[in-house]
Amino acid sequence: MSLVIVGSLAFDTIETPWDRREKIIGGSGTYAALAASFFTRPMLVSVVGRDFPRKFLDKLRERRIDLAGVRVKRGKTLHWHGRYAHDPNVRTTLKTELNVLQDFKPVLPESYRRAEIVFLSNLDPENHDFILRQLSRPKIVAMDTIRYWIENKPLALIQALQKVDILFVNDEECRLIARELNLIRAGKNLLEKGPRVVVVKKGEHGAMLFGKNFVFGVVANPCEQVVDPTGAGDAFAGAFLGYLDSIGRFHQRELRRAAVYGNVVASLVIEDFGVDSLLRASELEVIRRYNDFRRMSKF
Amino acid sequence: MSLVIVGSLAFDTIETPWDRREKIIGGSGTYAALAASFFTRPMLVSVVGRDFPRKFLDKLRERRIDLAGVRVKRGKTLHWHGRYAHDPNVRTTLKTELNVLQDFKPVLPESYRRAEIVFLSNLDPENHDFILRQLSRPKIVAMDTIRYWIENKPLALIQALQKVDILFVNDEECRLIARELNLIRAGKNLLEKGPRVVVVKKGEHGAMLFGKNFVFGVVANPCEQVVDPTGAGDAFAGAFLGYLDSIGRFHQRELRRAAVYGNVVASLVIEDFGVDSLLRASELEVIRRYNDFRRMSKF
Repeated sequence: MSLVIVGSLAFDTIETPWDRREKIIGGSGTYAALAASFFTRPMLVSVVGRDFPRKFLDKLRERRIDLAGVRVKRGKTLHWHGRYAHDPNVRTTLKTELNVLQDFKPVLPESYRRAEIVFLSNLDPENHDFILRQLSRPKIVAMDTIRYWIENKPLALIQALQKVDILFVNDEECRLIARELNLIRAGKNLLEKGPRVVVVKKGEHGAMLFGKNFVFGVVANPCEQVVDPTGAGDAFAGAFLGYLDSIGRFHQRELRRAAVYGNVVASLVIEDFGVDSLLRASELEVIRRYNDFRRMSKF
Repeated sequence: MSLVIVGSLAFDTIETPWDRREKIIGGSGTYAALAASFFTRPMLVSVVGRDFPRKFLDKLRERRIDLAGVRVKRGKTLHWHGRYAHDPNVRTTLKTELNVLQDFKPVLPESYRRAEIVFLSNLDPENHDFILRQLSRPKIVAMDTIRYWIENKPLALIQALQKVDILFVNDEECRLIARELNLIRAGKNLLEKGPRVVVVKKGEHGAMLFGKNFVFGVVANPCEQVVDPTGAGDAFAGAFLGYLDSIGRFHQRELRRAAVYGNVVASLVIEDFGVDSLLRASELEVIRRYNDFRRMSKF
């Protein structure tokens, strides 16, 4: 099996009511790839500027993440600046400097093109076809999106959904795309737009999975200290797909467990700023959390 | 085993963005007793005015609810008038006419006094002692509260908590009492104030249980059509305690299952206005939902 992740490597400036970090490393591709690396050897497609630390790329390589698809371009790396409210589910984007990500056309190295799972993370939906055409025969096309594309390219987004197997959205995005307040109806509505599986991430309230003939709900892994929620959703998707890639089956049972692994790895992410806790954690820690979670939710 | 529920019988006027009901029957005691009646034969302590329909009391009796503790007093029955926002978790109380509930001192009939479980539902915390003194030796003292008492009688509430085994709160109340935003820390904080078990009801996001050496999280039963959330929390508690009463054991395993039964019966309540869906449902329907829920949340 093989998993290609197309997403950003970025600098994040993060403000919480209690603390602040200036230009630490983030990006949807970083979080998703690190999360997936607990389970498999993901191949990353991304672009950075010359200002991006090579040392960090080395760290990703140490985690067995394939960086053949990461281009270093003249210019500056994507920089996102956001602020969280006391309620960590509420965040405001203060600034997004796309920099080298502007006009980025993701080209896949030859070695990536036979991948069986591809994750299109927060991309312009108009770029999906360009990427998918480079893959010889993916079994699972997964995508995540953001409010910006839902509001600014609704038609392209709906077209993109038709070619997707697994859609990741948060609860707000789910309601927005479906134009439906009730989350259960909204999730089922999205199923009719193309995806075989819709995964709704609900932050501190866990996640829901909608399939053609099943619904799965799971609470979040209890966390007493939410330091920085950035990247939790990307890590959820990365772990979800990394687990599926490692198992190589995509039935209900595997999808449910993938969501629990997504949950568990996301709970790691929010305990510290940036990717630090992902870098520190071992596979054993992920397994331990999975088992603890299983005990926690048993009845 | 035996379960005494002290709570209100009331008229509710309910406005939702889509519909409205004028003076239908409600009250925390009504919801809790009906929910408990799927599992056991609850004994209700309450007061109504002469305007309360005898026919409805007969319906409660048909459900094997003991009404020896329900007084009919000269005057009018409690009337609550509330409005729900598009988000059914958000509600505004427009009016509360206490009527006969004003100065209600709940006196337990002789036949109730050896009950092993007592549920003090949304009462003035200063009345708790008066009730508890009438019970010879309850094994489980459970209580629910409302924002009004947290804000207006904080000291009495904290004192009341010291004599409680199981505390039911919603997430907002939990944060308010604990003065702590993080729900996990807040729940654990409440454990230190007296209760052996804290049950946090999170509406559409399910529930959490905090015990001395365990945490249990459970998602809500998915509901595509939330018609009227009134009474869901009371029904949750009623089903929870009714189940425990029927089992007669109060260990972790039973507490977890009690929460799932609470969930399942609450999901019934919100599908229609008032108590109609509780009156229509059979024990079989509750079992069916429990089993469906088990399948839904399995991984």
